[in-house]
Amino acid sequence: MSEPRLNARYAVRADPASVAARADALALEQSVEVPLAAVGDARVRDEVVARVASIAPRGDGRHDVRLEIAFETTCGEPGQLMNMLFGNSSLHDDVELVDVEMPAGLAAAFGGPRFGIAGWRDAVGARGRPLTCSALKPLGLDARALASLAGTLARAGVDVIKDDHGLADQASAPFAARVAAVRRAIDAANRETGGRTIYAPSLTGSLDAMRARMRVARGEGAGAFLIAPMVSGVSTLAAVAREAGVPILAHPALAGMGRIAPPLLLGRLFRLFGADATIFPNAGGRFGYSHDTCAAIARAAREPWGGLAPALPVPAGGMNVERVPELREAFGDDAMLLIGGSLLAAGDGLEMRCRAFVAAARPSRTAATPGEARA
Amino acid sequence: MSEPRLNARYAVRADPASVAARADALALEQSVEVPLAAVGDARVRDEVVARVASIAPRGDGRHDVRLEIAFETTCGEPGQLMNMLFGNSSLHDDVELVDVEMPAGLAAAFGGPRFGIAGWRDAVGARGRPLTCSALKPLGLDARALASLAGTLARAGVDVIKDDHGLADQASAPFAARVAAVRRAIDAANRETGGRTIYAPSLTGSLDAMRARMRVARGEGAGAFLIAPMVSGVSTLAAVAREAGVPILAHPALAGMGRIAPPLLLGRLFRLFGADATIFPNAGGRFGYSHDTCAAIARAAREPWGGLAPALPVPAGGMNVERVPELREAFGDDAMLLIGGSLLAAGDGLEMRCRAFVAAARPSRTAATPGEARA
Repeated sequence: MSEPRLNARYAVRADPASVAARADALALEQSVEVPLAAVGDARVRDEVVARVASIAPRGDGRHDVRLEIAFETTCGEPGQLMNMLFGNSSLHDDVELVDVEMPAGLAAAFGGPRFGIAGWRDAVGARGRPLTCSALKPLGLDARALASLAGTLARAGVDVIKDDHGLADQASAPFAARVAAVRRAIDAANRETGGRTIYAPSLTGSLDAMRARMRVARGEGAGAFLIAPMVSGVSTLAAVAREAGVPILAHPALAGMGRIAPPLLLGRLFRLFGADATIFPNAGGRFGYSHDTCAAIARAAREPWGGLAPALPVPAGGMNVERVPELREAFGDDAMLLIGGSLLAAGDGLEMRCRAFVAAARPSRTAATPGEARA
Repeated sequence: MSEPRLNARYAVRADPASVAARADALALEQSVEVPLAAVGDARVRDEVVARVASIAPRGDGRHDVRLEIAFETTCGEPGQLMNMLFGNSSLHDDVELVDVEMPAGLAAAFGGPRFGIAGWRDAVGARGRPLTCSALKPLGLDARALASLAGTLARAGVDVIKDDHGLADQASAPFAARVAAVRRAIDAANRETGGRTIYAPSLTGSLDAMRARMRVARGEGAGAFLIAPMVSGVSTLAAVAREAGVPILAHPALAGMGRIAPPLLLGRLFRLFGADATIFPNAGGRFGYSHDTCAAIARAAREPWGGLAPALPVPAGGMNVERVPELREAFGDDAMLLIGGSLLAAGDGLEMRCRAFVAAARPSRTAATPGEARA
C-alpha cells in the first residue's frame, strides 16, 4: 500500500461514543460517497476509500479526526483537491476542515507561488523591512480620481497599490481606462521620487475576462494582480498564476469564517495554488480573527512546505499607521502591511499619512515610532 | 435617484441598541469599504454607497437588515455580484446573507437557465411526473465498470445519469475514456428499451479544462453537464452555461451551510447564473437541512423571477426508493429525484431497485407505492 495519500485534519463535534462512526462517515463522504457495503471493488476499498488514521479529543468539546485521502482522487488539480477535502462535508455543520499535509513532491505539482517573498522584494526593491500596500477606493470614483489617489500613494513611497477588491469593470472606472490612468500616475510618481511602486489591478469575471484584462494590464506594465480565489474558484487562481508573469495577491472575499480554518485556506491552500501574497483580516481590525489565528495564517504562508516558495502574509482589514510597530512586532519583515480606508479618512492630510506609513515600515534598525518617522 | 439597486437581505446578530450602527457598517463594507468620512465624492455618496432600507427584529435574536446595493457595482457579472453581496461580510460571523431581489431586466442580464424545466423534459421525454436521476460511483472504478453501472441504470429507465461529483479526470477513469464508455452503454440500453436516458458528465478544473471536456463530451453526445459552482466559481458556471448547448446540473459541493442561506445560494443564485437544475441535500438524508429549507430551495428554483426559466429542484443526499412517494408529495412533478448510493448498496439487486425507483416516479395518476410499482 504505497499509493500516496493526503493527510487531512478535521475538528468534529461528536461525543466520545459516536465519534468513531462519525469519522467513518466522514471518510466515506470525502472519498467514495457510498456506504462501504456498496464498494464491491477490492482496489477501490483498499486504495481509494479514505482511511481514518486517528481520533483524539481536542479539549474544546470536539475531536481531532485525521483522514488519509488517496491523492489519485484529487487529480493534482486545485478545485478537485478542495472537493475531495471538504466538498460535501462543507454542507455538514459539525465539522471544520483544519489542515492538510501532503508529500513534498505532490505539493510542488500544484505550482505554488511563482514569485514568492523574494519576487515581491525584487519587484519593489524592498530589503530589511516589511512591504507596504494600500488600496484604490472608494468604488464609484472615476479613473482620473483613482489615478490621482494612486499618484499620491506612489509619491509617498507605498510599495504596492492594489485595486479595492470591489473594483471590477464598472462603468464609473472601466478596467482598461483605470489601468492606463493609474499606470501613468504611478510612473510619474516613480520618476519623480526614484521609487519603484507597482500596481496590482483586480482580476474578476471568468478566466476569459481575466485573460483579456491581463493582456491589457501587461501592456500598461502592471506589476502584480489581485484575485479573490473563493469568488473566482481556486482553479482559476492556478490558471492565472501560470500565466500572469507577475506576483499574485490573494483576497479573502467570500472565504467565510471558521468552516475551513483560515490558516489552511488563506495561508496554505491559496499559497499552494499560486498566490504570492495573501491578504487576511488582522486581529483588532474590522473582523473577528484572533491574534493566534493571524499568526497561524502567517506561519502557513511562509513556513517551508514541499519546496514551494513562501508567500507574503498581508495583515489588513482596518489597520492604521499607529499600529505599524505592533504589526512589525507580530509579523516581522517578511510581510506586506496593507492600510487603506484609514489613510483615505485623512482627507487633505492623505499624503502626510501615507508618508508616515511608509516611514514606519523603514528598515528595522532605523525603525521609529510613526511620530518620529514622519520627520 | 433612479439608478437601479439590488435589494439584499441579511440576518444580523446584534442587540437593538447596536443594530443600526452594525447595519451602517454592513452597508459600507458591501459597497465602498471605507468610512463614510473618507467618501468625498458626492456621486459616490449618493449613488454608490449601499443604503440601509430597513431594520426589523426577526424573532430569533437576530435582525432583518435590508440593504439597497447599487447595481452598477456588480457589473452584471456573477462573481462580482457575489462579491458585492457578501465578499467581505462572509468573514464576519454575525451575519448571514438571506436573500436578494433585483428588477426583472437585471436578473435576465445574468442569463439564467438556458433550458430550464421544459428543456429537461424535452431532453428525456418525461411528462406528468418527476424526473429520475442516479449517479455513477464509487470513485476509483474504471471506465468499464462505471459504464456497466450506467447500462444498468439506463435499462431500468433512469432519466439522467450523472457522474458522482468526485469523478474528475482520475487515472482510474479518465474523462474521455469514461464518457465514451458510458455513452456506448447508455446508447445500447436506449436502443434496447426505446428509452431516452441522458448522461451528465462532471466538469472540473479551470474553464480551459472544462471547455476541452465539453468538446469531448459533445462528440459523445452528452445530454447535460454537472458542475459545482462554489468549487468552479460562479463566473465559470455562467461561462459554461453560455457554451454548453445542453442543460446544466448544479452540485452544492463547498457551498457551506447557513452563512449564505441555502435557498438563496442553491436556489436563486445558481439559477440566476445558468443552472438548469440544482442538487441539494434533502431533509432526512445525510445532511442537516430542514424540510422548510428544502421547500424554500425548491420554491426559489421554480418561482417566476424576472423572466428567467425555472430550474429543476433535485432533492438528494441519502434518499432511497421508499422515500419517493414522500419526495413527490413534497416537491411535486417538476423535480428531479436523485438516488445514488442506496441503489448501489443493493448489490445484485441493483437493477430491480432501479426499476422500482423508475416505477415510483411514474405519472401521478398511476402513481403507486414502490412495492406495487415494481410489478
